[in-house]
Amino acid sequence: MSLLLFPVLSGLCALAFAGYLAWRVQKQEAGTGKMKEVSEAIRLGANAFLKRMYRTIAIFVVILTAVFAIALEPWAAFAFALGASATALAAYIGMSIAVRANVKAANAARSGLSQSLDVAFSGGAVMGLSVVGLALLGVSIVYGIKQDPVEIVAFGTGSSLTALFARVGGGIFTKSADVGADLVGKVEAGIPEDDPRNPAVIADNVGDNVGDVVGMGADLFQTYVAALIAAMIVGTRAGYGETGAVFPLLMCSAGILATIFGTFIVRAGGDPYRALNRGLLVTAVLAATAFFFLARSFMDMNSFTVTILGIVLALVIGIVTQYYTSYHRRPVQTIAEAAQTGPATSIITGLGIGLASAAPVILVISTVTLSAWLLIGVYGVSLAVVGMHAMTGMIVAADSFGPIADNAKGIAQMSGLGPEVEERIDRLDSAGNTTKAISKAFAISDASLAELALFTAFFAYVGISVINLTQPRVIVGLFIGGTIPFVLCGWILKSVGKGAFGVVEEVRRQFREIRGLMTGKAKPDCARCVDICTRTALAEMAKPVSLAVISPIAVGFILGVEALGGLLAGAVVSGLLLAIFMATTGNAWDNAKKYIEAGNLGGAGTPAHKAAVIGDTVGDPLKDAAGPSLTALIKTMNTVALLFAPYFLQYTLL
Amino acid sequence: MSLLLFPVLSGLCALAFAGYLAWRVQKQEAGTGKMKEVSEAIRLGANAFLKRMYRTIAIFVVILTAVFAIALEPWAAFAFALGASATALAAYIGMSIAVRANVKAANAARSGLSQSLDVAFSGGAVMGLSVVGLALLGVSIVYGIKQDPVEIVAFGTGSSLTALFARVGGGIFTKSADVGADLVGKVEAGIPEDDPRNPAVIADNVGDNVGDVVGMGADLFQTYVAALIAAMIVGTRAGYGETGAVFPLLMCSAGILATIFGTFIVRAGGDPYRALNRGLLVTAVLAATAFFFLARSFMDMNSFTVTILGIVLALVIGIVTQYYTSYHRRPVQTIAEAAQTGPATSIITGLGIGLASAAPVILVISTVTLSAWLLIGVYGVSLAVVGMHAMTGMIVAADSFGPIADNAKGIAQMSGLGPEVEERIDRLDSAGNTTKAISKAFAISDASLAELALFTAFFAYVGISVINLTQPRVIVGLFIGGTIPFVLCGWILKSVGKGAFGVVEEVRRQFREIRGLMTGKAKPDCARCVDICTRTALAEMAKPVSLAVISPIAVGFILGVEALGGLLAGAVVSGLLLAIFMATTGNAWDNAKKYIEAGNLGGAGTPAHKAAVIGDTVGDPLKDAAGPSLTALIKTMNTVALLFAPYFLQYTLL
Repeated sequence: MSLLLFPVLSGLCALAFAGYLAWRVQKQEAGTGKMKEVSEAIRLGANAFLKRMYRTIAIFVVILTAVFAIALEPWAAFAFALGASATALAAYIGMSIAVRANVKAANAARSGLSQSLDVAFSGGAVMGLSVVGLALLGVSIVYGIKQDPVEIVAFGTGSSLTALFARVGGGIFTKSADVGADLVGKVEAGIPEDDPRNPAVIADNVGDNVGDVVGMGADLFQTYVAALIAAMIVGTRAGYGETGAVFPLLMCSAGILATIFGTFIVRAGGDPYRALNRGLLVTAVLAATAFFFLARSFMDMNSFTVTILGIVLALVIGIVTQYYTSYHRRPVQTIAEAAQTGPATSIITGLGIGLASAAPVILVISTVTLSAWLLIGVYGVSLAVVGMHAMTGMIVAADSFGPIADNAKGIAQMSGLGPEVEERIDRLDSAGNTTKAISKAFAISDASLAELALFTAFFAYVGISVINLTQPRVIVGLFIGGTIPFVLCGWILKSVGKGAFGVVEEVRRQFREIRGLMTGKAKPDCARCVDICTRTALAEMAKPVSLAVISPIAVGFILGVEALGGLLAGAVVSGLLLAIFMATTGNAWDNAKKYIEAGNLGGAGTPAHKAAVIGDTVGDPLKDAAGPSLTALIKTMNTVALLFAPYFLQYTLL
Repeated sequence: MSLLLFPVLSGLCALAFAGYLAWRVQKQEAGTGKMKEVSEAIRLGANAFLKRMYRTIAIFVVILTAVFAIALEPWAAFAFALGASATALAAYIGMSIAVRANVKAANAARSGLSQSLDVAFSGGAVMGLSVVGLALLGVSIVYGIKQDPVEIVAFGTGSSLTALFARVGGGIFTKSADVGADLVGKVEAGIPEDDPRNPAVIADNVGDNVGDVVGMGADLFQTYVAALIAAMIVGTRAGYGETGAVFPLLMCSAGILATIFGTFIVRAGGDPYRALNRGLLVTAVLAATAFFFLARSFMDMNSFTVTILGIVLALVIGIVTQYYTSYHRRPVQTIAEAAQTGPATSIITGLGIGLASAAPVILVISTVTLSAWLLIGVYGVSLAVVGMHAMTGMIVAADSFGPIADNAKGIAQMSGLGPEVEERIDRLDSAGNTTKAISKAFAISDASLAELALFTAFFAYVGISVINLTQPRVIVGLFIGGTIPFVLCGWILKSVGKGAFGVVEEVRRQFREIRGLMTGKAKPDCARCVDICTRTALAEMAKPVSLAVISPIAVGFILGVEALGGLLAGAVVSGLLLAIFMATTGNAWDNAKKYIEAGNLGGAGTPAHKAAVIGDTVGDPLKDAAGPSLTALIKTMNTVALLFAPYFLQYTLL
């Protein structure tokens, strides 16, 4: 039990270091009055949205805490509330710094590229370290009190709920704003992105923060917790005893220390893209070395191999994703070429490429799963995903760096900082976009393995060794489970369509009614657009979240625990397939547009470019709202199923 | 065994009656020289494509027959070739009459609406009766010779292969032509559909025949056979002995006699839409009555209930589909409204509605599956689907009627038969479009139940009572199985994108290079477009078909029969979900366009209409090429798995 000190201390260490970085960001200058004004608008919009979203989450959490306290036990209710709050706190810290770091990174860019990189990355690293620090601390403390990994499930369920809300709400907000802003701005009025005359541009920048920073942060927090739960439950149940529970925590401690070291490497400066890559690489190598010694002391060499398999998986999926979405490769170029005959052929080709791209990803995941399982049994899947989590801190940091740089670019443009500064921030932004592709691949492979690990934890915990696919109720469970990801994505896309429609109507109205707006003499009413996105997101996010909570409980009570196993398996399979499809398709359309903008096939302004912009717009909610919500959905279903599993074993209707 | 006389006789009866209807169609007048010329071009194009597609199928069949003769046994090879040929023959007969009935229906419309309905529907009924007649005859004869339903599996595999080729090849052909013709004709040049100046218009009409008539006919032939195989295997294995095998055959016999009666009801004339509906209803009631007496004599009342469940399922799914795709309802109107802010929002909304529409369909299918299973055990699923097959003949007839009426409309327009005749044929065509929605819902529910039935037959036949989802290899099987439908759809969409691109380039070239084409002084080179579609379809169809044949064999031999069970389950789930999604989305976009064309939201010619046309074009290959191929894919995988199952039990690599 004394070994638990390590994860607790390294969690605290991460938080302390995050505090130090936050202080460093905070003391930077914020630049000119115009810059402060723009950044203030973004910050206020983001805070207003977060506040209102957190209020909705709080209502859900309070109700569910009460339900759990009565239906389950007070402890579960407490741990649930704790998990929900910790996740919300991590996301809040991350966003608070991000909306301050953006303007400071823009201002630092006036001095030089390295200075700007330092500020922007430090801002992202606060988020990365808060996520892993709070997650590891929370899990270790709950485990330390109760001494049984099953007791962490309620903590994980709370975390899931916040993450799902953040993904769904943030996704709907950000894509309503983005799609709406692009449609009237770029397509109809023909003004550039981030043009201050566009009333939706502040909402778009707010969206970058609430979607990418809050959503991604909360989601990876939850994946981190989910993988630990799975590994600790399976580890103790699969015959490793207490070591099976503590070993994953030690791996995470090593990962945190490696991450802190990695942040220094990035902040050392130089070309931003290379600096980020170097940081990721150093972190991975350090963590892998630590895993070697940990495995030699506590487990065996097969366990070491399995932890490395996780890192290799993330790497290979990154390469595959790059192939399908980079504009130096055939798939994206084919989509761009198809745009020459209009948006329809380009969209059809993109859908085709996205659907087919599922195959290599699934083959890689299947191979790793099977290998890990053959090496050390069912525990292998969990260890592989915990192995990947050595990288989580850096991945979240790099991913939060993206929107900070993106915001900095918008602020520089809206404040007119001049071409030299803008060019510097452009380099940051393009580094952010490239690492985004890597971090997205990481998030998908990470989540898919974590979902599989949770699924193994489900039957390890429930103590059933057979979920029989030849039973009608299991097949029905599989069917219903497979349907839920489709429904979630459907609802989110409809919501984005609705929100974007509202934004477009509003921007059109302002262009029509506010005199002097297009000549720059009058100011747009940006708050209205932020409000439309906020209201749409809040109104539309309760339904998908309820589906995720209610479906496993309903199937468990009506059809029993075997059918519930079918439900989870069906949801994992169809959710993963849709997530890959949506991520690839959306990114491929995005880059097909960029390929044309880079001067190919006639360049910007051609009909082919217009067609590609339509494809890109369709892809936005696929890759940034519906797709990323899927992993949060499935982890929520899995943790809810685990939480109620003992009750389904006792009471089943049919 | 003497009971086998009934199915054999009713099969022959169907063929004889089909011959009589063909003779009646044949003796009609074909009209003016111009009409003959147009219809001749369509007929030649369709025949040329079918000939080349059949040559490719023949190569595959010959190779596989040789492989089966060596790897399995000579009988299996023979039955396989027989199944492939019978399916091809039924599709050939149907198309031969369809490409003759189109011009004769157009000519009959000069006399009156009822005359035209009679000719067009008789043409469709030839296809419907050939399909059910040849299928029932084939299955009965093979069963009569071998006395074991397992021996029909090879026949079903051959049928699957032809159907999958027809769906994939026909789908790619028809949508390359359709998308290409629409993009340059309607969108770029602004000329109406079926305008004789458009060089792609003949290819488009050829496509209606090879896609809808041949593809749908071959596919429903195979579903018919697949359901019989499943019911007969499960019936004999589930303790009903020979009755379990013969009862489904008797049900089909009753269905055929009801269908023949139903054709008279339709041909009695009146409003075409009502006449078709009346025919379907009378057939259903007659068949249900026959099922009652059959169940009382051979089985029990629970079995009767189950056969009715199948018919109810088709009905409810029809209603659900109507809700999501009719333009009198909110979903389609929402898509149309979203088109006011451009194609992107309309496409996003359509994708959202299509994805979410999977839920009610899956709930209905799950309820029917569970009820049938609870009523009479695993045999229930098979009986429910055989019950639905009482309607297959009428459904195929109504579905082939659609393209005949559609072609007649094109011929009337291209030959200038005047507004009165065109208005009559328009009524036929719109009745055809409405019944198409019903027949598509039927095809999906039919195929999904048939796939589930085949899945039950798989484990009944293999004799394993447990396919354990907690085993890694089963999970991996599930993952791979779930991926295959995504890959198939991806490949088909990419192929359509490629084919349409080729057609657009060719039509643009002809508009540019052939002088006097737009003023009607010069003729377009239609054969070139037909050739481009043919070449694309032939080049692209081998890959998906190979995937369907090889994947179950590879998984079976490498990971074993349990993993193969996982593969089939995964493919059924994700295939069904994608099929519903694609059918709903495509049809909803189509009708959103029609809603605007009917004068809503500003009507045709507005930017909203243009946006809706783009959505409709994207939806074309979803609803008519990729989606419909899915059911043929899964049935092929299932029959191949059944065929090789005994060998997987003996030899497995891992």
